[in-house]
Parts: sequence; structure tokens; C-alpha cells
Amino acid sequence: MKVLVLVSGGIDSSTALAMAVSKYGKENVYALSVIYGQKHDREIEASKKIAGFYGVEQHFIDLSFIFKDSGSSLLKSSEKEIPSGSYARQKDNDTDLSFGEKKENAGTELISTYVPFRNGLFLACAASIAQSKGCSVIIYGAHADDAAGSAYPDCTPEFNAAMDRSIILGTGNEVHIEAPFVNITKADIVKRGLELKVPYEYTWSCYEGGEKPCGKCATCIDRSKAFAKNGAEDPALKRS
Amino acid sequence: MKVLVLVSGGIDSSTALAMAVSKYGKENVYALSVIYGQKHDREIEASKKIAGFYGVEQHFIDLSFIFKDSGSSLLKSSEKEIPSGSYARQKDNDTDLSFGEKKENAGTELISTYVPFRNGLFLACAASIAQSKGCSVIIYGAHADDAAGSAYPDCTPEFNAAMDRSIILGTGNEVHIEAPFVNITKADIVKRGLELKVPYEYTWSCYEGGEKPCGKCATCIDRSKAFAKNGAEDPALKRS
Repeated sequence: MKVLVLVSGGIDSSTALAMAVSKYGKENVYALSVIYGQKHDREIEASKKIAGFYGVEQHFIDLSFIFKDSGSSLLKSSEKEIPSGSYARQKDNDTDLSFGEKKENAGTELISTYVPFRNGLFLACAASIAQSKGCSVIIYGAHADDAAGSAYPDCTPEFNAAMDRSIILGTGNEVHIEAPFVNITKADIVKRGLELKVPYEYTWSCYEGGEKPCGKCATCIDRSKAFAKNGAEDPALKRS
Repeated sequence: MKVLVLVSGGIDSSTALAMAVSKYGKENVYALSVIYGQKHDREIEASKKIAGFYGVEQHFIDLSFIFKDSGSSLLKSSEKEIPSGSYARQKDNDTDLSFGEKKENAGTELISTYVPFRNGLFLACAASIAQSKGCSVIIYGAHADDAAGSAYPDCTPEFNAAMDRSIILGTGNEVHIEAPFVNITKADIVKRGLELKVPYEYTWSCYEGGEKPCGKCATCIDRSKAFAKNGAEDPALKRS
């Protein structure tokens, strides 16, 4: 059986890739990496290192044209600054982090780093490409922390189940989704990855596009905590 | 309220656009047209004529890079010929029309003109762009004939409902789908369009890329029948 893994170059997808290679064998694993206009395009370089380490075929697609008008602070096309601090703090205290200009109709509280329907679009592309390539499973690293408090509505178990059903139905039952981390935390992901000896020193999560991780943005803080909970140090921060 | 209409340049989406303009006003309607490597790229020209006729803003995206390895006979990247005859006949009698090279694992019978998860991907792009542009509804023209016998699994009411749920959840309840034709036939669509005086002479449906509609392919036959059932003649065939 062949599988397609969405590989961003961060911790979650790198661990998902390691698990897929361990389960299916590297010759049956196809890595899909998406350029979407992110400021932190160093993660694309990281994804190459990770895919290279595991010896899997990797394919890149560029979707930046879809998101160029989104106003997400995560993107080069936006002049907004990426807020510092963890996601949890952003949700609790900040009031100026809602998405785009649509505050008036947002019962939801989408934070400024939200990219419109990003995971839905990534999964839809993955479904089209998986079916073209004869892969019957799409594996991706959405996890419980990102879904917490609906900070990212496209990371929840409910969203994942709906997309899975859409893809099963829409591909005539040839492709489905596996999201092995959808109910677990980043700390649990790191635990599994440390057991599998994932080369986390190659990964990149920082939302800023600097030479080294900033150590202050949401992802830097969250990944650092995830290592700490496992009694380990983040090798990416060590590197810097 | 602003809406996004997927406009291909064929009969179904042109009628959907006419209904949307009539209901919401042209200043609130945004047309999205997708280039996906189709042999019949004359439909893109048709979509421009239709959007121009209704005076709505139109945006194009090119997704051909996603489908280039799909082997679908509908695409320039495939050397397969588009089969002639109506969809119904293809499903009933032909044995050589399954999708790509994956016959062995296909309990489904995907026909050669199937493009992997095409509608799913179009709707996902539409969701990202709709949310970026402040549109709260995506309107598209999937209809019962295309879904018949699961010829196109990504045209069924079940698929549509699953994608609608995915988009509602994934956009934090800001965007949803309306598929006004999902339970009606092409003949019923033409009936509504004739009432709204849709300029069907501008539309293009033929699967071949010729100067004029071939009159023999699945879509030519099916649209001709849809007009006949309304006691009308297809103005596109008249033109030729």
C-alpha cells in the first residue's frame, strides 16, 4: 500500500513521516510539501532535509496565489506582524487578533495567523495527487493543541472527520485520511518522535523568517514546552 | 451578503451565476473560474463572456499542476481520447473507461473523464478565496445527472453535504456551500435558465477543443437533450 504524507518541515509532520516510513517502508511513502507564501519559508528547506533523511520521494506544490488576499499575518503578502506568545495566550487575552476585516460577522475568534481553510485546501490537493499517484492514504499531523479553543478550526477532530468523509466519497472510496495525532498533544508527538529517533535538529517551526529560531513566537514556545515535558531540550534551539 | 460562484463557462454554472446575480445583485457576486489543464479550454473563454455579460468581477486560478499525473482523458496532459457518447452509455456498456491504472483496487467504476477529486479541490480553493474576500457562500452547479450511477463521485448530494460540513467547520462557520442543482437534472437547469434568459449561446460544454462543438461527445449530447426536453434548440449547436 502506498501513502502520501503532508510534510511541512515542522515537528508534527516530521514525526508523522517517521511513523509512516516505519510502518509502510520508505519506497511506499510519498512526501507532499506545500509552499503557501509563508514568511517562514525556511520550513521548506527543513522539509527537504527531513524527506532526504528518510529517503522518500518528495513533491512540492505552490499555493501562494490562493492565499495572497487573505491578510493572514503568517504570510509574506501581509504586513501584519506575527504576534508573539503562545496560542493559548493569544486566545485568552488579546482582542486584536481576529481574522482579516470580517470581525463583524465572526462569532468565531480566528487569530491573525489563521490562513483561510488552509488544512482543507492542503488535504484536497493531497487527495487529488494521492489518487493520481495510486496512494490510498493521506497522513497529516494535525494535533489537539492547534485545535484547542478552536484557535485553528481546521485542526479539530470534527473537521478532520468531515474532510475524511469528503475525500472518501469524492474519490469513489479510493483515498482516506489518517490523522494519528488529532487527539493527542504536541508533547505526546515529541514523545513518539524521540522513541523513533526523529532528527528534530533538521526541523523548523519558528514563525519568523530569521536565520535561527526566534525563541519567542507561538511555535517556538510551544515546541520548547513539548520537549521540556519529555525531559528533553529542543535541538533546534540548541543549534541556535 | 457577498457570494462566490464557481463559473466554468458551461450551462450549469452559467445558470447558477444568473440565479446568484438575480438574488444578490451583481456587485455582491464574485466569479471564480478554474483552469485545470482541460483539453476544452474554450470553456475558459466562454466563462469570460458569461461573467462579462453579467458584469461581475471574475478571478482565474490555474490548478493544472495538481492534475498533471492523473491520466484523465479530459486533460491535455493525457493522450487518451475522450470517449464519445453520453455518460449513461459509458457507464452501462463500456469496459475500458476506468480511471488511470488503478483498476485492480477500484470497486468503484471511475470513468476516464474523471479528474481526481476535482470538485473537492475546486470547492476547497473556493472556500479559501471566499473567506479571504469576505464571501459567505460558495455557489456551484453540480447536478443529479453527473452524479447518476456515481459516474462522478464528487457530484453526489452526499459528497456535497460532506464538503459543506468540512467548509463550515474549517472556516470557523464563516463560509458554506449552496448547490442549487444537486437534486435536479440538466433539463431542469436549462428550464430555469431559459426563464432567466441566460445567454446560452456564449456557453461552451464540448469536451473536444475544436473550433465548434463536436456534437458527438458526452456533454454535447447531454446538453442537446436538455434543451430538447424544454422544446428548445441548443444555441451553441445552432451557432455551429
